[in-house]
Amino acid sequence: MATAGKVIKCKAAVAWEAGKPLSMEEVEVAPPQAMEVRVKILFTSLCHTDVYFWEAKGQTPMFPRIFGHEAGGIVESVGEGVTELAPGDHVLPVFTGECKECPHCKSAESNMCDLLRINTDRGVMIGDGKSRFSIDGKPIYHFVGTSTFSEYTVMHVGCVAKINPEAPLDKVCVLSCGISTGLGASINVAKPPKGSTVAIFGLGAVGLAAAEGARIAGASRIIGVDLNASRFEEARKFGCTEFVNPKDHTKPVQQVLAEMTNGGVDRSVECTGNVNAMIQAFECVHDGWGVAVLVGVPHKDAEFKTHPMNFLNERTLKGTFFGNFKPRTDLPNVVEMYMRKVNRNRQIAAAWSMVASF
Amino acid sequence: MATAGKVIKCKAAVAWEAGKPLSMEEVEVAPPQAMEVRVKILFTSLCHTDVYFWEAKGQTPMFPRIFGHEAGGIVESVGEGVTELAPGDHVLPVFTGECKECPHCKSAESNMCDLLRINTDRGVMIGDGKSRFSIDGKPIYHFVGTSTFSEYTVMHVGCVAKINPEAPLDKVCVLSCGISTGLGASINVAKPPKGSTVAIFGLGAVGLAAAEGARIAGASRIIGVDLNASRFEEARKFGCTEFVNPKDHTKPVQQVLAEMTNGGVDRSVECTGNVNAMIQAFECVHDGWGVAVLVGVPHKDAEFKTHPMNFLNERTLKGTFFGNFKPRTDLPNVVEMYMRKVNRNRQIAAAWSMVASF
Repeated sequence: MATAGKVIKCKAAVAWEAGKPLSMEEVEVAPPQAMEVRVKILFTSLCHTDVYFWEAKGQTPMFPRIFGHEAGGIVESVGEGVTELAPGDHVLPVFTGECKECPHCKSAESNMCDLLRINTDRGVMIGDGKSRFSIDGKPIYHFVGTSTFSEYTVMHVGCVAKINPEAPLDKVCVLSCGISTGLGASINVAKPPKGSTVAIFGLGAVGLAAAEGARIAGASRIIGVDLNASRFEEARKFGCTEFVNPKDHTKPVQQVLAEMTNGGVDRSVECTGNVNAMIQAFECVHDGWGVAVLVGVPHKDAEFKTHPMNFLNERTLKGTFFGNFKPRTDLPNVVEMYMRKVNRNRQIAAAWSMVASF
Repeated sequence: MATAGKVIKCKAAVAWEAGKPLSMEEVEVAPPQAMEVRVKILFTSLCHTDVYFWEAKGQTPMFPRIFGHEAGGIVESVGEGVTELAPGDHVLPVFTGECKECPHCKSAESNMCDLLRINTDRGVMIGDGKSRFSIDGKPIYHFVGTSTFSEYTVMHVGCVAKINPEAPLDKVCVLSCGISTGLGASINVAKPPKGSTVAIFGLGAVGLAAAEGARIAGASRIIGVDLNASRFEEARKFGCTEFVNPKDHTKPVQQVLAEMTNGGVDRSVECTGNVNAMIQAFECVHDGWGVAVLVGVPHKDAEFKTHPMNFLNERTLKGTFFGNFKPRTDLPNVVEMYMRKVNRNRQIAAAWSMVASF
């Protein structure tokens, strides 16, 4: 591309101060250095984590900064040593990386890369400790290695997943954070057996994706738990078969769920980040075989408390990060799951139009 | 047998009151009723759980009672409906049962039988709510369905494992409780991969068996953790390769273990029942893939506390009961594991004696 190796001037939404409205600015985006890629961002969505660090309540404030991490784009140019990506590749940025070399990347179980694991306190590139964004020579900090609230951004190659170029970036951009987190929590970690009962705590985007994952895995009862009953109807589309609003009950929700399920659910997935919901999600699983999976990010002072007999009665509690998906290895396959469904729907539509044409 | 269907008079060690010395008495043992067996106990050992309920501190006191649950014996007679056992069978009594019909018994994961799960508050037979022991017509309570501190005892058939009659009962009697609990915690639940690092908290009988299980599974580093350094030498025989005495360190033991193992152990097994050791055993496992298994029975008021991020960093915490062995299905195989080792040692000894005779 004509822009390769040159500074690009483009628009970005800059956060100058904690909690103050973002401001559209013209920023300069430096060319990618070794093991980096520069990406033209076509679509970006807003995740609560952006808001959380923008508010910077109890978090390290780091401003001016460009937020954004759930996005889709096309590689503009690549830095030295980058062989897996080339200009024109369709990609999803990911807030946590995969170096493919460390013990975590080599473990079949972990996706918590030693080198590129999410770091919310680092506002610069890992290679040279500098920012690639500036305004009038003054550096603007990066956010979780992605900073997708910019028309162009620079990322470490390990934080970029190359995907099927036929996938619509306006749709699949949401797979780079919340949807994969919820989906993976169910299909990779909770792994509900066919015909099992699953409780989903919290029916936001992550919880809906967790419900969808439970449905894909073959769960037959999927119980959505939320304090906001207006979410229930939408959640049916994602597989929820019944609902519990803790506000409707005087008993603890653990007990309500145990009574609904002859002793407890087979699996639960906690997608709120509220520590009380975490405790409920653990204590509502069946003794003998129940598995609870924590997804939501807790308050920094939160404390998980339970009687240890709840474990000794053969319950399991696990946590997951990004649904245990390895960003570069697995995310392209999540996009393919979506594409298979799109193609199947197209075939069905084509078949119907043939029928209609007779 | 000539005694079948008749009351047997025999010796038993009776606990008349909490904390008072057991008294050797002549007791009457009624014949087994439907789905029960009467067993001549040849060997019995003493487990801390017997002591715990004999002291009855904070436990429901139930006296007079015959304690004992780690034992080996021979079936004397069987009650109506018993087809799996016959007089003369060599058996191990188990403090928790397996009905083979309930959801737990049908689950591949659970051994917490709905019907015959350990019940320390029941002092009578489950069939008719009566005791089979008496002195001068006054009933003496049973303990966890086994009461092996008696020359004869009556048990539900679901609490009796039929084993290889060639197995020496004086040795294999200890497999009916603590040894299987520790061994199973490692091989059935923690499942350390080959070459992995395992920490064992508490080097009593259960912990030694957990170390042995880790060795059998192929762990290459087995770190014993105990406040009592005099246990370390013995623990080497069971597979421990190194030791940590928390008293020797000012840092939390989690941190000591993390520094010894480049970030944490792959698996830990907690065999003390102390809630602080439980928390340490959880927090010392490696993020990304670590699994901690709780075995020791906690105080009734204990509270397990940790920061939920310790879970979200992809650690797993599970508890186990009787090492997840199903008493009737799996215990005979544990005896076979022991017998294979005995036979192998005999073959080696025979080979050496042939060499010596040349």
